[in-house]
Order: sequence, then structure tokens, then C-alpha cells
Amino acid sequence: FNIAVLGGDGIGPEVTAEGVKAMQAVGRAFGHNFTLEYGDVGGISIDRHGTPLTDGVRELATSADAVLFGAVGGPKWDDPSAPTRPEDGLLALRAHLNVFANIRPVKVYPELTDSSVLKPHVLEGVDMVVVRELTGGLYYAQPKGRTQTPQGIVGVDTMRYSESEIERVLRVGFELARGRRGKLTSVDKANVLETSRLWRATATRLADEYPDVELEHALVDACAMQIVLRPASYDVIVAENTFGDILTDEAAILAASMGLLPSASLSGVPEAGARTPGFYEPIHGTAPDIAGQGIANPCGSILSAAMMLRYSLGLTEEAAAVDRAVQTVLEQGYRTADIATAGDAATGTTQMGDLV
Amino acid sequence: FNIAVLGGDGIGPEVTAEGVKAMQAVGRAFGHNFTLEYGDVGGISIDRHGTPLTDGVRELATSADAVLFGAVGGPKWDDPSAPTRPEDGLLALRAHLNVFANIRPVKVYPELTDSSVLKPHVLEGVDMVVVRELTGGLYYAQPKGRTQTPQGIVGVDTMRYSESEIERVLRVGFELARGRRGKLTSVDKANVLETSRLWRATATRLADEYPDVELEHALVDACAMQIVLRPASYDVIVAENTFGDILTDEAAILAASMGLLPSASLSGVPEAGARTPGFYEPIHGTAPDIAGQGIANPCGSILSAAMMLRYSLGLTEEAAAVDRAVQTVLEQGYRTADIATAGDAATGTTQMGDLV
Ligand SMILES: CC(C)[C@H](C(=O)O)[C@@H](O)C(=O)O
Ligand SMILES: CC(C)[C@H](C(=O)O)[C@@H](O)C(=O)O
Repeated sequence: FNIAVLGGDGIGPEVTAEGVKAMQAVGRAFGHNFTLEYGDVGGISIDRHGTPLTDGVRELATSADAVLFGAVGGPKWDDPSAPTRPEDGLLALRAHLNVFANIRPVKVYPELTDSSVLKPHVLEGVDMVVVRELTGGLYYAQPKGRTQTPQGIVGVDTMRYSESEIERVLRVGFELARGRRGKLTSVDKANVLETSRLWRATATRLADEYPDVELEHALVDACAMQIVLRPASYDVIVAENTFGDILTDEAAILAASMGLLPSASLSGVPEAGARTPGFYEPIHGTAPDIAGQGIANPCGSILSAAMMLRYSLGLTEEAAAVDRAVQTVLEQGYRTADIATAGDAATGTTQMGDLV
Repeated sequence: FNIAVLGGDGIGPEVTAEGVKAMQAVGRAFGHNFTLEYGDVGGISIDRHGTPLTDGVRELATSADAVLFGAVGGPKWDDPSAPTRPEDGLLALRAHLNVFANIRPVKVYPELTDSSVLKPHVLEGVDMVVVRELTGGLYYAQPKGRTQTPQGIVGVDTMRYSESEIERVLRVGFELARGRRGKLTSVDKANVLETSRLWRATATRLADEYPDVELEHALVDACAMQIVLRPASYDVIVAENTFGDILTDEAAILAASMGLLPSASLSGVPEAGARTPGFYEPIHGTAPDIAGQGIANPCGSILSAAMMLRYSLGLTEEAAAVDRAVQTVLEQGYRTADIATAGDAATGTTQMGDLV
């Protein structure tokens, strides 16, 4: 298997190294061969090559069986007048690979409820997947820019969706729900936004094709409250790019740490055992404040590698072995700093990777 | 004082009646005269007059010293093909009154931590105000609509901000922070959105004028996580219309119930004791599931009336008396259904209003 490894900035390379380590362990245990091709992306690529994404790295990502990605960005490149930013490299890659469905499972490890801000009863039975639309909406549509006018600068972003863009990501949600508890929550702001009215109408239309799935519509503001108040009531959630970005960071509250959460971005319905090219990244960012200290939680990257084994490399059993290994290490009481409770000695990034 | 009272739909009229009751009690106790002028708005106005906001009601709101508003909307008017909706009436009113700064304080009553999903230590010291931009951004800008194309329907919404729109709402945040703990969190998504880059640059520029205020920038996704993980670290938050909508519903998690939270919408910096016309509404919606049952929590409306006394009618002492009355009734153990813990007998809407 050819895997493109793009660590990016901040803690990106540190955690990605542990995702790679998990794959190599799978290779040894199950007799697979992973060819790793490394590339620069984001801030480091701006520094080295003057652009956050070179043609070469784009090619590398396109031709690989899958991409393992870290994170990009940081204060060093935050100058508002800069012509390009680390994040542009990530957005260009997602669009180029057409990975419109970003799948973010939220799992609660019972061992970690001590370090949660939530009372334990709230977390009982939580098991949800958020499908975030990833290649459209407010992130991409034109016009987008800042213009000097006689009255001062004016900034514009556009939220645009075609019916087919909405339909394909909703289908991912319906299919996932079908294989799980059969409930789909479609998130929108249909009482205000036209894109949301189209979104809601499309979800309602598709529901006829999925009589085994119960569809509910939720307004994004209400969902932002309920996702923490009654998280166990959700099964699969589908949301627009920006709404999904906000809701999945928020949902990390349920998981005790964002550092534990993986994601898979695909250009179609995920199928365990299939070989769909995909883009895998932990949902956390570059965490500049702890970069280089060797204390970041690598589980988000390791679990992203597991999703890659499952959906892009057809290695279902191997993926389950990685998931179980993370579970076991947490059960044994090992904790990186983000999930350590007062008094615990924290486990470092590479040690955690070694243990898994 | 002339007050326009627009109850709207669902539980709107029920809770607004209790806000009015609190004002009348203030009138009796302090010797003030409130002239109440009632009007239809939202769904009820569509049903009776064919439009969610008649010219007459717009006039009534414009000429009043302040508006006490309930909530609008409901499944009855949710048809996606309807030419107009209840919410259009609310959005038109906010724009017409130019109340660009929606001030949403989030207060934690220590008596209610039992019914919170959060562990008590998280709620210690929580005292924040969210200033939501209310008359621009994704809610209002053109183009906005759905068009049939040969490839299917396409929906569009536009997020547009001028520097001056951003500046005026940020100034409200800076001024509020100055009178509080001196910290301002400006929320944006500057790593992706052009409007956010303008927002961030404007906040940074204004910070020079407020050396006594510590400005921090936060990405909206990160803030959606931190606002629940570390709520006590926030003082004043300023956010774009849509971001503010999502974050304030989410912040209701901290307050045990959305039913407790008031808001004031003003066209300038709030000043206790001043007489700025304003628009006052609880942050909750019409709650169609419990409408007409007399069980809704009226405190959001009562506390909105208190904000009105403070900012629009110049009655600081009277406002504080209403705030204290709500506090006392909660201390005495009275609970509407939304904040009752198992075993408590719940207090009804009008009884709660009578007690306050
Ligand atoms: C870094 C940023 C562009 C990115 C996004 O907003 O998509 C990140 O927040 C994420 O959630 O993957
Ligand atoms: C009813 C709706 C239009 C409104 C909004 O989104 O502004 C509501 O959610 C609110 O927060 O006041």
C-alpha cells in the first residue's frame, strides 16, 4: 500500500509519527507492506517552497492509496495580509481529492469520565458519528474576499450549495445510520438560511428512499445545546461544512479530549473492507503551545490510521486491532497530559505510541 | 413609558405576560406608569394579517420607548415553499430598529447546579456576556435565495460585513469589558473566512484605543469547545450573527436552562440608567411542544424586562429589584419544569411570575 504522510505543522508531525508507528506494527503482525511517502504541507511548505501545497505533494496525495494528515497552521503564519496561509493547503487538498464526506465518530471511553467536565450519567450510551460536508459551503464558494470601498473595507464569504452536493453527503449519513441505530439528524438553520431550506428539503425527499432510517431535522443552535445536554440521543448527524466544524469541536467535550478523536474524509459512502481512497486526520489542530514538547496525545492520529486501514486499505480486522489496542492502553491507565487527572504521571507522545 | 409588547407564537405570549407582570409590579412599587401596546408578530400575524410584520406593528415598535418580545415560529409555518415565515418578522424588526448589538448575559445560579449536566467545579466563577452582532452577516446579506438551474436547485446565502459594522459591535464589547473584568474574546474563523480576517484586523486595530482591556482572538470551533470546558475564563465575547446564535444557545448549557436567559438588543453601547430604545427578548424559542400548557419558564422574559428597565427606561434600581426577585424565588426552591430535579413539584408559568 502507498500511503502519503503529510504531518504539517505544530504537533502534526509528532502525532502522525505515532499513527505511522501503529500501521507499521500492523504491517509486522499481519504481514502487510506500507510504502510511506512523506511530503510538506501547510506552514512548513510555505517556509520551504513558498506555497502551502506544491504540485508535487498534490500529485503524491492523489496517487496514494490514502493520505495520513496531521494538522496545519500556527501564529507564525497568521499575518492577515499574507497572500497565502497554511490552511489554504489543507483546503486545496480536500477539494482536489473531492473528499466531501468528513466522518467524525465520537466515542466515550468509560475510563475517562473522571477527567470529563460532564456528570457521568450524561455520557452513558453516547456513540455518535458526525458527517461534516467538507468541500463546499462557506469555506469555498465565490465570491470571497476583501475589497476597499469609499466607505471602508468590505469582506465577503459565500455559502452556496447545489442540491447534488447536499444529496451526496446526506446519503453518506443515511447509509451510515442504516448500519447503526437507524437515526439521522440533519442539521441546518432553515428558519433563516436559503441553503438550509434546500438542505432540509433534500433530506426530506431522500428520507423516502430510507424507510428504515428515522430522519429528524435540528436547527444548528438547538443542536449545539442538545449535543451536550442529551448526547446519547444522537446516532448520525449530518451538517454543512461550517456547522460541522463547530459541532465536532464542541462534541470533543464528550470525549474528554479532542486529542482522542479521529476522522476519515471520503468521496463516497464508507464501506468497511472496501478500498476507497481517503484522507485521514485527527480533528485537533497544531496546538502551537505544546508543539515540540513530546506531550501531545497521539490517539487521534492512531485512530485515524485505523479508519484508513478500514476504509481505504480493506483491512477490517487490522483496523479493529488498532482500535482495541488504544482501548486497552487507556484501560491500563496510561494517560497523556490532556487526559491525565491531577496526580497521574502523564505518558509522553512516543511512549503512548509505543504502548499502543 | 410606552412599551410595545409583541408576544409572538408558541410560549412567547405566555412568558411575555410574566415579563409584563414584573414591570407592573415595579410600576406599583416605585410609582411608574407603563403604557402597554400589544401587537401581533410572526406566525400569528401571518394567520391574521397575511404577513409576519404589519406596517402598524413596525410603527408601534419604532415609536415605543422599548419593545418586549416573546418568540416566533413553529411547525405550523414551516412549509419550505411558503413565501414568508414567522422568523422574517423578527429579522425585519431587528433590522428596522437597527439593534445591531444583542447582549446575552450568562449567569449561573448556584442553586441550580444540581440540575446541570456539568460538574459543579466547572461552573464556579462563571459570569460572561456574549455580544452577538444582530443585523448583518449570513442572516441578511444579498444575494440570498434558491434558483433552479439545469443541474438542479442551487441555494445561496452571503456573509458580508463592512468594517464599520464590525467596529460598532466590537466597541460594544470593549466598553462592556471595560466595566467588567477587562477581558474581551473576539470570535471568528480567520483561518478560513475573509469576513473573519476583516473582523480580526478590526478588533486588533481597536484594541489600541482600549489599553485597559485585554483582547484575545478565538476561532469559533475552539470557542465552542472552551465555552463549556473553561467557561469561567470568559468575560465578554463578541461574535458574528450566526456564530453568536450558535454559541449563545450552547452557553445555555451553563445556565441549567435556556429558559432563564434574557437578552437586550441595542443600537449602541449599553449604559445603565440611560434611555436608549431597545428590543428585549428571552433567548429561548417558541417551544411548540409545551406551548399552551402553562409550564414554560418565564424568567427569561422577566429578566429581559429587567434589562429593559435598566437600559431603555433609565430605571437602574428597579431593574436590580427584578433581578433580585428572580434570585430570591430560585433560592426559595421554586422551580419550573425545565429546572426541576426529579421529585420536585414544578411551579407553573403564571405562579412563577406571581412569586417573582
Ligand atoms: C484548520 C482548519 C482549516 C480546519 C477546518 O476548519 O476545517 C480545522 O478546524 C478542522 O476542523 O479540520
Ligand atoms: C428564531 C431565529 C430567527 C432566532 C435567530 O436565529 O436569531 C433565534 O434563534 C434567536 O437566537 O433569537
